[in-house]
Amino acid sequence: MTQTILITGGARSGKSRIAEARCLSIGRPAIYIATAQAHDAEMRARIAEHQARRGPEWHMIAEPIELATVLHASDGKGPRLVDCLTLWLSNLMLAGHDWRGATSDLIAALTKQASPVVLVTNEVGMGIVPENALARAFRDAAGTINQWVAAEADEVVLAVSGLPVKVK
Amino acid sequence: MTQTILITGGARSGKSRIAEARCLSIGRPAIYIATAQAHDAEMRARIAEHQARRGPEWHMIAEPIELATVLHASDGKGPRLVDCLTLWLSNLMLAGHDWRGATSDLIAALTKQASPVVLVTNEVGMGIVPENALARAFRDAAGTINQWVAAEADEVVLAVSGLPVKVK
Amino acid sequence: MTQTILITGGARSGKSRIAEARCLSIGRPAIYIATAQAHDAEMRARIAEHQARRGPEWHMIAEPIELATVLHASDGKGPRLVDCLTLWLSNLMLAGHDWRGATSDLIAALTKQASPVVLVTNEVGMGIVPENALARAFRDAAGTINQWVAAEADEVVLAVSGLPVKVK
Repeated sequence: MTQTILITGGARSGKSRIAEARCLSIGRPAIYIATAQAHDAEMRARIAEHQARRGPEWHMIAEPIELATVLHASDGKGPRLVDCLTLWLSNLMLAGHDWRGATSDLIAALTKQASPVVLVTNEVGMGIVPENALARAFRDAAGTINQWVAAEADEVVLAVSGLPVKVK
Repeated sequence: MTQTILITGGARSGKSRIAEARCLSIGRPAIYIATAQAHDAEMRARIAEHQARRGPEWHMIAEPIELATVLHASDGKGPRLVDCLTLWLSNLMLAGHDWRGATSDLIAALTKQASPVVLVTNEVGMGIVPENALARAFRDAAGTINQWVAAEADEVVLAVSGLPVKVK
Repeated sequence: MTQTILITGGARSGKSRIAEARCLSIGRPAIYIATAQAHDAEMRARIAEHQARRGPEWHMIAEPIELATVLHASDGKGPRLVDCLTLWLSNLMLAGHDWRGATSDLIAALTKQASPVVLVTNEVGMGIVPENALARAFRDAAGTINQWVAAEADEVVLAVSGLPVKVK
């Protein structure tokens, strides 16, 4: 049984839409684990608006850092959608966390799930080398996380112009 | 019958060459709709040079903004190649036009064509997030246009190192 | 018989790992032609470390510029891995060489090899247009080299999240 599905793609490539449809095709209601941080009233309003737009088939969880914990706590309650790993990496780096250790914990958690998990991530390494050293470190880490999760995933899809290209 | 074909890819990925060959495989002569603007003598000379290089199998039209109008006016006269949507978006934004409305008009026009249309566009969202807010807005708009046109297209191809990868 | 294999992909896409495995699947020992320049003690230490990590199945050659010469000299001694063409282009441009001529020489050399050659390159053209003119010239040249080598190659693979996508 397919358990872990990774949807990758560039900005505005339709990856979240593909991931949402894939997750709901597995089961309803589904659990949306958003890594975006509700720093202020505007973000809280946007999250509330997204939740309203998604309708009753989605249960919303906001979790910027502790993905492994949230996966364990939500297991058995329906398919989960994690959107997205790249924002999660950004949160980890901003908070001074060890992203390698956190990713190992995430992968260990993925292998123990009874309910499926769909994860969204970003392609950030196909442009010119960034002049900024932090941006280079970020894209190296993002690419490494993508490789590690893709190696564990049962299914990997690249979104191109809103369309899915099967990678694994 | 395949009517709308979208060829996407990065800079110097061979997308225009693939699109030209695809368009001429449909019929000759074909109509080349260039969205590059002839701002000055240098650009006019380049367009003339391109036209000469392409030879008699191409009829050249330069149109930076009004793609829907040009498609209607050229319908029935041969297959059309639009090169490219990303430059067209840039022209729309610089002129202060509503790109969403213009794209809706373009898609409505595509659905009404009797002669096939091949469109070239660019992948611009697979690098690191740009620091410049205008660049971020541009890549979001470019990705959205690609999704909308790809959803309508009968065939979508990603150019990689000059080679076509079938997406749809 | 497959002779020339091109592995392309973004930063940290797993392209070198895929290329190393592909090269060793052809024959052992294999010859690793590194285009990275050993400018200083740190780089020399890194190259020594890489060589140690790779183990006795690899014979290491460092060559920043003269790829055609090295290919001819190493032919018949095992499969070769060239890692990577993008760094080679950077070396050519920094040294003021004619990259078009050097690429023609490389392709002419590839057509004459008895032993297979696996080449690694980078996708650098799927981000937003760089503001820096040198970066734009670099990505245009990198894309052009990728097209030329891919046209000659018997097999082309795009690495996405560490996984191979067959392009040719």
